[in-house]
Amino acid sequence: MSVLPRVAASFAAQSLMQTLGAEMISAADGRCTIAAPILPGSRQQHGFGHAGLTFAIGDSAAGYAALSVMPEDREVLTVEMKINLLAPARGERLVAEGRVVKAGRRLVIVSAQVFAEEDGRRTAVALLQGTMMPV
Amino acid sequence: MSVLPRVAASFAAQSLMQTLGAEMISAADGRCTIAAPILPGSRQQHGFGHAGLTFAIGDSAAGYAALSVMPEDREVLTVEMKINLLAPARGERLVAEGRVVKAGRRLVIVSAQVFAEEDGRRTAVALLQGTMMPV
Amino acid sequence: MSVLPRVAASFAAQSLMQTLGAEMISAADGRCTIAAPILPGSRQQHGFGHAGLTFAIGDSAAGYAALSVMPEDREVLTVEMKINLLAPARGERLVAEGRVVKAGRRLVIVSAQVFAEEDGRRTAVALLQGTMMPV
Amino acid sequence: MSVLPRVAASFAAQSLMQTLGAEMISAADGRCTIAAPILPGSRQQHGFGHAGLTFAIGDSAAGYAALSVMPEDREVLTVEMKINLLAPARGERLVAEGRVVKAGRRLVIVSAQVFAEEDGRRTAVALLQGTMMPV
Repeated sequence: MSVLPRVAASFAAQSLMQTLGAEMISAADGRCTIAAPILPGSRQQHGFGHAGLTFAIGDSAAGYAALSVMPEDREVLTVEMKINLLAPARGERLVAEGRVVKAGRRLVIVSAQVFAEEDGRRTAVALLQGTMMPV
Repeated sequence: MSVLPRVAASFAAQSLMQTLGAEMISAADGRCTIAAPILPGSRQQHGFGHAGLTFAIGDSAAGYAALSVMPEDREVLTVEMKINLLAPARGERLVAEGRVVKAGRRLVIVSAQVFAEEDGRRTAVALLQGTMMPV
Repeated sequence: MSVLPRVAASFAAQSLMQTLGAEMISAADGRCTIAAPILPGSRQQHGFGHAGLTFAIGDSAAGYAALSVMPEDREVLTVEMKINLLAPARGERLVAEGRVVKAGRRLVIVSAQVFAEEDGRRTAVALLQGTMMPV
Repeated sequence: MSVLPRVAASFAAQSLMQTLGAEMISAADGRCTIAAPILPGSRQQHGFGHAGLTFAIGDSAAGYAALSVMPEDREVLTVEMKINLLAPARGERLVAEGRVVKAGRRLVIVSAQVFAEEDGRRTAVALLQGTMMPV
């Protein structure tokens, strides 16, 4: 459950993550976990977590999973990301788990799952698959 | 540049849109435009608009474009959405333009473009393609 | 390694699968495996398997995984599919493994991996994620 | 309606395109059109064109649109492609129209539409959005 220092520094510089109350749980070895409460200000019209919240932490978990396998002086940009929504984001908190599928020299293929936690139970709410580019 | 009342009501009930400062510009006849400033709290690590912001308003513009062609008592859910990021979201404001590609009985295929506005110039920053489901 | 009879019948009726030399290895319980040789007539300009071949068997393995969990009288259609290509399809044969991620009443979310086999070694060449609709 | 010679040469070297009976109609200036009959051997279980056929010519039209704006000594690879299927591929022939959305130095974002022609009428059957990489 460690976080690489340079990944933590990049995450801390993303003001949207602070606005959403997101927290980096771990980031190392091609994996990254980010959690965020479903704040009163992060909801869609039925009171569930907004797809924009789900995407934001899923994409970030995938991106920081990629960054965790890059050389020190690199950063990563999202080239493209696809999200399938599996269930409403109902509960207190979302947890996104990103992982590297394949790290190439020019592109890194990534995946992420997002879960909603409600009363201690976890439900998968989204699956993401995308491409990151080292810069 | 009109907004259908039931679309406006649904949009107003999405607290994330308020958190992001997003505003619905128009929504009718299978098209919808949503704009949002790149607030201090909506940024990624280089100070540009976060991909989560770009996705949130692009997905919403696409979804409300779909809702604008639905019967009165329906809502729409995002089934899946794919975003290609074309350029950094640099500037003062993002504008998302969603449109219906094909409205079926069970599913609605949608598309959206997101532009960044900087000093009066517009740059395309993202292209989205996805599926909405009437419920 | 069993194949449900109704899945086998549907697969046998897909003439493109025969044109490509594809064979259904197994299909049951939300999983399906399809293999196809990289025929002289299935190649791209460098002699590797064409992305159209990779997609065709990946999409079919995902679709038949979905069909394997449907009631007897249903069929499935691909709503949308996203493919990330990980490596050239180099070797003698491609093997696609599809699985159901989430089976809903109205939509089934699916995933597939495609591997190339060369001299007994397996390389992942593609990852697919998509949506099937029961009809 | 011209075809750049180096694009034509690459297309001619793709044996799958010949197997599918595909023909390059035009390729220049960031646009490419490819047509293919719905051959007896290119079908799904209901006799319509297989999604693998639709994808193959859509992806190729998008890829060759990208190649048409590349320097002479380059080729392009598909990084990822997303396809939304809009209607069954019913009729005599499919026509795919690819275009460059944004040509970057490292990546080219592309889009394609695929139409089915039946008795002289054209129906949109698929929309594709993806990423090509110059190599």
